[in-house]
Amino acid sequence: MSPSSYPSKLLENAVNEFAKLPGIGRKTALRLVLHLLKQEKEQVYKFADTVHHMRQEIMYCKSCHNISDSETCNICADMNRDHSTICVVESIRDVMAIESTQQFSGVYHVLGGVISPMDGIGPDDLTIAPLEEKIKNGSIKEVIFALSTTMEGDTTNFYLYKKFDKYNITTTTIARGVSIGDELEYTDEVTLGRSLINRLPFEKTI
Amino acid sequence: MSPSSYPSKLLENAVNEFAKLPGIGRKTALRLVLHLLKQEKEQVYKFADTVHHMRQEIMYCKSCHNISDSETCNICADMNRDHSTICVVESIRDVMAIESTQQFSGVYHVLGGVISPMDGIGPDDLTIAPLEEKIKNGSIKEVIFALSTTMEGDTTNFYLYKKFDKYNITTTTIARGVSIGDELEYTDEVTLGRSLINRLPFEKTI
Repeated sequence: MSPSSYPSKLLENAVNEFAKLPGIGRKTALRLVLHLLKQEKEQVYKFADTVHHMRQEIMYCKSCHNISDSETCNICADMNRDHSTICVVESIRDVMAIESTQQFSGVYHVLGGVISPMDGIGPDDLTIAPLEEKIKNGSIKEVIFALSTTMEGDTTNFYLYKKFDKYNITTTTIARGVSIGDELEYTDEVTLGRSLINRLPFEKTI
Repeated sequence: MSPSSYPSKLLENAVNEFAKLPGIGRKTALRLVLHLLKQEKEQVYKFADTVHHMRQEIMYCKSCHNISDSETCNICADMNRDHSTICVVESIRDVMAIESTQQFSGVYHVLGGVISPMDGIGPDDLTIAPLEEKIKNGSIKEVIFALSTTMEGDTTNFYLYKKFDKYNITTTTIARGVSIGDELEYTDEVTLGRSLINRLPFEKTI
């Protein structure tokens, strides 16, 4: 569709802004904008103000680099949690995923990505230095790596493992294996192979 | 995911706002919000301000009810267009679709929907009265119905046809038939049947 077919510059600008979002093409952007046009003015102002306000006010926890409303996030500020166990994750979405399992009572460290030379992301672009600082201070007992099982995730795992080898800490990585509910015949061979190698005594799994 | 797993109220509010948009679930909303968080502040402010500004400033053409930046839209204000031929469409998206064909030089009338008793939309909820007003004034020669071929679209077509029957105008409807590029065997039988009934002399199609 040629740009000149938009009947209004205001509409076109709004479509352009929405189309910048990931996974939103121009047709979807137009659908969203027309939806907003049908809503009450107050509701649309609230949408815009909430987005503006969020970007302006949001902070990153100075300890774990998670998104937060204050200088220290709720998780790091919670004294009931085990501050000697750090779970290293890629992004805040992983924090939310792990939190929703209710199986982890330690704290997190958000790397902000994984090492990916192809995308120009090196170790210095991630929050590795502050993580090392925390470990150096000596109160950390265990670091759990919970990164994606992609090549980049594994590279980052290995880099961190080597880097922290000199400190007196336990480094672990979350278990890889057949998903619960999955049928064996549909599991890919790499996962199935790994789950055989890393088999556990039966009594540990119940 | 429980709402409490959001690490920040500001983030959660923004996700809630995005999740109100059609076709955007909470997971997608979170992805969009986290994308915005990674952008420069100025860029996000621009996004929010553009949306706010659009909703505040946008107008509807007083003649055709199309979205416009001014009281009369560019199409209605264009004196080179044929103001005696009105194409009746459901929404502004249809105007844009027809404009992009560059096959129509008349003007439009945006109904704002179709008659749909199931959704509580009756003739009075659409811009039928101003359309009749235009026809009454006598300068209209042809009204082209370009509504969807749904039950609601056909009902609206028929309602308008009956309503405007008493005026001395030609009423037409856009041709229905096999799409260009479609194979006959994959065309549904209703469309194929209609395209047989409404067959044209060969020389008219070249």
